[in-house]
Amino acid sequence: MITIWNENRHEKKHPLVAEIYPNGIHGTIAAFLEKEGFETHTATLDESEHGLTDEVLNNTDVLVWWGHLAHDEVKDEIVQKVKQRVLDGMGLIVLHSGHFSKIFKSLMGTSCDLKWREADDRERLWVVAPNHPIVEGISEYIELEKEEMYGEHFDIPVPDELIFTSWFEGGEVFRSGCTYARGNGKVFYFRPGHETYPTYHHKDIQQVISNAVKWATPVKRKRPVYGNAKPIETITVK
Amino acid sequence: MITIWNENRHEKKHPLVAEIYPNGIHGTIAAFLEKEGFETHTATLDESEHGLTDEVLNNTDVLVWWGHLAHDEVKDEIVQKVKQRVLDGMGLIVLHSGHFSKIFKSLMGTSCDLKWREADDRERLWVVAPNHPIVEGISEYIELEKEEMYGEHFDIPVPDELIFTSWFEGGEVFRSGCTYARGNGKVFYFRPGHETYPTYHHKDIQQVISNAVKWATPVKRKRPVYGNAKPIETITVK
Amino acid sequence: MITIWNENRHEKKHPLVAEIYPNGIHGTIAAFLEKEGFETHTATLDESEHGLTDEVLNNTDVLVWWGHLAHDEVKDEIVQKVKQRVLDGMGLIVLHSGHFSKIFKSLMGTSCDLKWREADDRERLWVVAPNHPIVEGISEYIELEKEEMYGEHFDIPVPDELIFTSWFEGGEVFRSGCTYARGNGKVFYFRPGHETYPTYHHKDIQQVISNAVKWATPVKRKRPVYGNAKPIETITVK
Amino acid sequence: MITIWNENRHEKKHPLVAEIYPNGIHGTIAAFLEKEGFETHTATLDESEHGLTDEVLNNTDVLVWWGHLAHDEVKDEIVQKVKQRVLDGMGLIVLHSGHFSKIFKSLMGTSCDLKWREADDRERLWVVAPNHPIVEGISEYIELEKEEMYGEHFDIPVPDELIFTSWFEGGEVFRSGCTYARGNGKVFYFRPGHETYPTYHHKDIQQVISNAVKWATPVKRKRPVYGNAKPIETITVK
Repeated sequence: MITIWNENRHEKKHPLVAEIYPNGIHGTIAAFLEKEGFETHTATLDESEHGLTDEVLNNTDVLVWWGHLAHDEVKDEIVQKVKQRVLDGMGLIVLHSGHFSKIFKSLMGTSCDLKWREADDRERLWVVAPNHPIVEGISEYIELEKEEMYGEHFDIPVPDELIFTSWFEGGEVFRSGCTYARGNGKVFYFRPGHETYPTYHHKDIQQVISNAVKWATPVKRKRPVYGNAKPIETITVK
Repeated sequence: MITIWNENRHEKKHPLVAEIYPNGIHGTIAAFLEKEGFETHTATLDESEHGLTDEVLNNTDVLVWWGHLAHDEVKDEIVQKVKQRVLDGMGLIVLHSGHFSKIFKSLMGTSCDLKWREADDRERLWVVAPNHPIVEGISEYIELEKEEMYGEHFDIPVPDELIFTSWFEGGEVFRSGCTYARGNGKVFYFRPGHETYPTYHHKDIQQVISNAVKWATPVKRKRPVYGNAKPIETITVK
Repeated sequence: MITIWNENRHEKKHPLVAEIYPNGIHGTIAAFLEKEGFETHTATLDESEHGLTDEVLNNTDVLVWWGHLAHDEVKDEIVQKVKQRVLDGMGLIVLHSGHFSKIFKSLMGTSCDLKWREADDRERLWVVAPNHPIVEGISEYIELEKEEMYGEHFDIPVPDELIFTSWFEGGEVFRSGCTYARGNGKVFYFRPGHETYPTYHHKDIQQVISNAVKWATPVKRKRPVYGNAKPIETITVK
Repeated sequence: MITIWNENRHEKKHPLVAEIYPNGIHGTIAAFLEKEGFETHTATLDESEHGLTDEVLNNTDVLVWWGHLAHDEVKDEIVQKVKQRVLDGMGLIVLHSGHFSKIFKSLMGTSCDLKWREADDRERLWVVAPNHPIVEGISEYIELEKEEMYGEHFDIPVPDELIFTSWFEGGEVFRSGCTYARGNGKVFYFRPGHETYPTYHHKDIQQVISNAVKWATPVKRKRPVYGNAKPIETITVK
């Protein structure tokens, strides 16, 4: 099951956002993933346990995360559970302003800070990893007519794989598609998706998220064993 | 189509090898990949064009490579064609003594040299990337009762992903499962498989090769365009 | 200034440890770094603010960390200050059981769990990055007659650079020298150093730590600016 | 000794280039490295053995390479010697159109192809690795008023470290500062430096090259031993 988590606050406060995403950002993402054949579920901040009960988390193969205004309202114990599930193998796709979410910062170990600007910059996401499954079906670049700018330096660990690099009209660049292994899980950060633009209605953006969900699906194998371990070979007495 | 290329010389010269691999190492690998549902093809050194005609190469999604005694007999123009196909997207799985093949050295840019010993060392391949699709279904380690030892320093570029690290009874370690992106293609080097041991009959070794073939399958997308490029944005006269 | 932080509890409780390290593990490390020309300072858990006052931290170029029994006693606000200093550029060398320290786990974002055994295993640390400044003066491997075993899977992010891989007599391997960039700072994890063995008296171990301190020294440049940013280029009205 | 190698053909053919670099690109680079305290030497294509005799190569700690028009005229045996020296530990700094040099392609294993345009694009090189010694003294970005454009996809192996990413006025991005370990040597590719612009007179470009030369200086240690190896531990008869 793919769970799409959304803060779902902008949609309630801002008519423009509600107009672009009448079913919420989560609703739009769930809809295009359903069309791709994924079984989806949605969860939002204001539900009990933010909609992320043990049952939901345990049944989630990949969690998609969008948050912005209310990162601080996400309870620490829920963040800990999500983190544990990632380390146990659940995939995690962090979108746009989710760079500042507790779960992302906790998995990265850095400030995840960046430059930003809301000024209708044109954004062009260039593919720098042409052989990666996350860019299946994607051309040399994805162009977004208007987006919020995010600029370097982006304070993240060095990505395990850098998939996209963004060009912004105002003069900046940004590592806009980054993968990370964490425990048994896989994490993908994908930059676009400011709430006042119809970014998640863009066919290529949908394709990337769909590819990423497939890529992040947990590998089937027993989890590693930790702790005190008997020797496999004989140790000589010294 | 998955093409398994084998030098196929040991099998003709050494009764012990012929006994372990009556259909050649290529035959054994093709057989277990067929069982996994892959369409396979085999090619060997002594065929015309080493069995790697343009038609074969153009229809090959992933090429598996085993060579040892006769790396020098592989014609440079065939190596160039294989390399071009990898850069165009074909997957390449290089096995064991293939570390010294022309195609692997050419894609790596280093000597690919290492320490080695034929002394019935026990080998234990530890999984260090538990979330990687190449280790699906694999336990914490694969144990091989007897194998040739390969030891560090292994003169390869830093792997994009390190999947396995081997322990050897005689006291050495080795980066024994390594991935590399090259152009639009993916390369996996997998250490085990000395010809005098039944390594390719081992269920886990078969599983890893099968997983790697799946992982290395080309991504479907248009290839990048190179060369002189018109500006996408207006450039001011300075 | 190089600050060596030590929990300094084993030394007080266990006569064997006190005998090996009469001035504490921190004292031994400070002494050999002094000989190499570094200006050193030591700090321990039971000092006020664990000896890591703002003044000490602000004057520290590289912090060396050894802890084991009392990770939980390190106050969260001190951990946060250390983390901020690393992101600001301070180098951090985490030794042995420091893998479970709050500061290391917080910078890694994973459990940092592993296999372990106290059974007098022989350890052999093989150099896998022969061109790295951390191995200057070091031979192909460092051999330790007796050490605690740490085995894979080691639940860390993929190292930016893998410098050493350990072979253990009992049959395990371990990524025993790992570098990470975090913000403006550099982190090096170095495995050896169980308190009941004279590991930090070993010439090669001292050389590695000394090299690592030099490597982790902060780069001199202005720190990146984050937050809202004016465009550098003109943005067209759309 | 630092050897600066230059094709030195544009300087002879094009008055504009000769005016910008009256002592050749190599002369300009040698001059600012001398000021930084390095002992320098220059070598050019039309000298005997391209100025890269065994004596010169054996005394060179870091080789800086600029070529463009005449990559094919560089003799294969000289390329092989340079490559061997890199694998033995010599640093190599490849500048601008050197991306298509035989030595760089041979060390990379890919086509090293890219998009390009000569149209007076403004280039802004953003620092993405703020803790790296190569950016010591460098601000958030380096701005070049006019440069040739190089755009993604750049067909190189995934860099070990990505130091700079360029923004171009015409809408492209480029991984413009990349490091690679090769054997015992270190390689740095640095994009800027089209011959018709005064790029190598730019203070920051000089600083980066100077930093890179320092970074690429060989590590002092014995080289790894390859080939047949006796066991260090006892191997049981099976």
